Amino acid sequence: MRIAIAGLGHVGAAVVRLLCAHADRLAARSGQEIILVAVSARDRGKKRDCDLAGVDWVDDARALAARGDIDVVVELMGGADGVAYELAQAVLASGKHLVTGNKAMMAAHGVELAGLAEKSGVALAMEAAVCGGVPVIKLLREGMAANRVSGLRGILNGTCNYILTRMGEDGMDFDAALAEAQGRGFAEANPAADIDGYDSANKLALLSALAFSTAPDMGSIFIEGIRHITQADLNDAAARGGRIKLLGIASRLGDGVVVQRVQPVFVPLDETIARVGGHANILQISGDFAGDILIQGIGAGGDVTASAIVADLVDVARGQRGCAFGVPAASLISPAGV
Amino acid sequence: MRIAIAGLGHVGAAVVRLLCAHADRLAARSGQEIILVAVSARDRGKKRDCDLAGVDWVDDARALAARGDIDVVVELMGGADGVAYELAQAVLASGKHLVTGNKAMMAAHGVELAGLAEKSGVALAMEAAVCGGVPVIKLLREGMAANRVSGLRGILNGTCNYILTRMGEDGMDFDAALAEAQGRGFAEANPAADIDGYDSANKLALLSALAFSTAPDMGSIFIEGIRHITQADLNDAAARGGRIKLLGIASRLGDGVVVQRVQPVFVPLDETIARVGGHANILQISGDFAGDILIQGIGAGGDVTASAIVADLVDVARGQRGCAFGVPAASLISPAGV
Repeated sequence: MRIAIAGLGHVGAAVVRLLCAHADRLAARSGQEIILVAVSARDRGKKRDCDLAGVDWVDDARALAARGDIDVVVELMGGADGVAYELAQAVLASGKHLVTGNKAMMAAHGVELAGLAEKSGVALAMEAAVCGGVPVIKLLREGMAANRVSGLRGILNGTCNYILTRMGEDGMDFDAALAEAQGRGFAEANPAADIDGYDSANKLALLSALAFSTAPDMGSIFIEGIRHITQADLNDAAARGGRIKLLGIASRLGDGVVVQRVQPVFVPLDETIARVGGHANILQISGDFAGDILIQGIGAGGDVTASAIVADLVDVARGQRGCAFGVPAASLISPAGV
Repeated sequence: MRIAIAGLGHVGAAVVRLLCAHADRLAARSGQEIILVAVSARDRGKKRDCDLAGVDWVDDARALAARGDIDVVVELMGGADGVAYELAQAVLASGKHLVTGNKAMMAAHGVELAGLAEKSGVALAMEAAVCGGVPVIKLLREGMAANRVSGLRGILNGTCNYILTRMGEDGMDFDAALAEAQGRGFAEANPAADIDGYDSANKLALLSALAFSTAPDMGSIFIEGIRHITQADLNDAAARGGRIKLLGIASRLGDGVVVQRVQPVFVPLDETIARVGGHANILQISGDFAGDILIQGIGAGGDVTASAIVADLVDVARGQRGCAFGVPAASLISPAGV
């Protein structure tokens, strides 16, 4: 299976390293070799922690869609629109599989792209878009496929959880905790998407879509970030036997309406979610037959996200197709009911 | 997709109820209807909490393998050998898919059955064999497919965890806690398989096989149960800031040897595993790229196990084949190294 990677930041470089490090393991699990044929990134001269010897360099990622020697394109450029979106459309229309870690693009254009993939009979896989190395997409789409899901909630942004943990448990102030997260590589240089809740909301939009067979819809999500959380708030929560966590929460009401919100929430310490600290993520899903399932792990970083990207590649190599959101794109309804 | 169910205990009846309750949902996710054609169980007259109108009754389950109107057989009879094993062999040899919840059979004959499935080009799916509704097989086989796993550990038996929780946190004695677990339907009437650790060991054998690409091997697992655990042991653990849990643990050593053991272990309270009480299960898996992933939920009971069985049916309907243990059966090596 011949692949190309568009975007060579931390995640892209980690994918290249993983493919080299585990080539034999992946071939055994995939039933075929996974061969990196071409890459594309903005800065050709940048030093990267991966070996690209013998790999084609393409300046305009969109050119990958037209090539006849590529079966799968891995999109790691990011951004809801622009080149990433044009590439995704072209790749799927050309009958190639697309593996993406682009939550913003999937939240904005997921229904259209899923429909394109179905029309072309190819895979559109997005495990890396939510919770890094923790396979929550697969859990909802496949593991809990037999359940009517009544709700889900979780810590979906590692930066915010890191800041709240450092403030609440170590007495650090907001700015210092944010600076530390940036220094350790969890936060964006412009961290607004993290701390204002938009990153969590993108992920919640995708999880809700999978859980409730609704269209991802950022416009219907109530979003509140953590900028206004103070040391006093966290001390007060501790005094009441809990912690404040930025949660993404989605519930299906009796009339079919899905309510989604991202918001700082008091969680009592006897709940597992309250005890998930640092930059970890956790998701709790409630199904009518399986009951409550909780999954946790590290949600951001090059290596963990590469784990999700390559798991999707192995699935594609094994022949998995199916629908990106579990059901045909045309059947995804509005989360606000009809 | 036409299916048959062999074995109509709590799990089989729950599968029938789930297929009825969620027929539309399952058709949307599977791309086709899942139709129950035939069932087989020992006692035809027994009252069951499910509707079998219009479904064929077959007295000898092995006859299901020869029928031309069945695509998938769901095996829920249990037992490592005997009719379940004969049925599994015949189903796979006849080119039908097999979905099973039979951990003892898969631990004893998994390599042979996986090889038969590969030869026939059919699916052999076993999500329900380990941790009920918690999709740990899928997590190891697919979600963490890109990782070299260094180790895993978890609470794999709900009955033992229930007994230890009631003894340690509520001051109940062993016999009373066991009687309560039996009354609530978690424990077997003959609970030796639970409390002597063999049920946990069967599950550990399968998880190790998936994690390390080794053959399931009950003979290489050190097994210690919880019969000898006293109130004093649990009080002592609490005084030391932790709890005693019956864990299944598997680690890969540097020389390729896999060490597996089931044993009561002191776990400090700051670890999530220590706080998983009642009849819940939890599994922690350590991968080189994904880091530590924890997944928890209810591991035993009709409804939760039906969730796993039907998730496997949806996978089969979607066309998933692949290898039961993630890699070809012939490549599974001995856990004791060579």
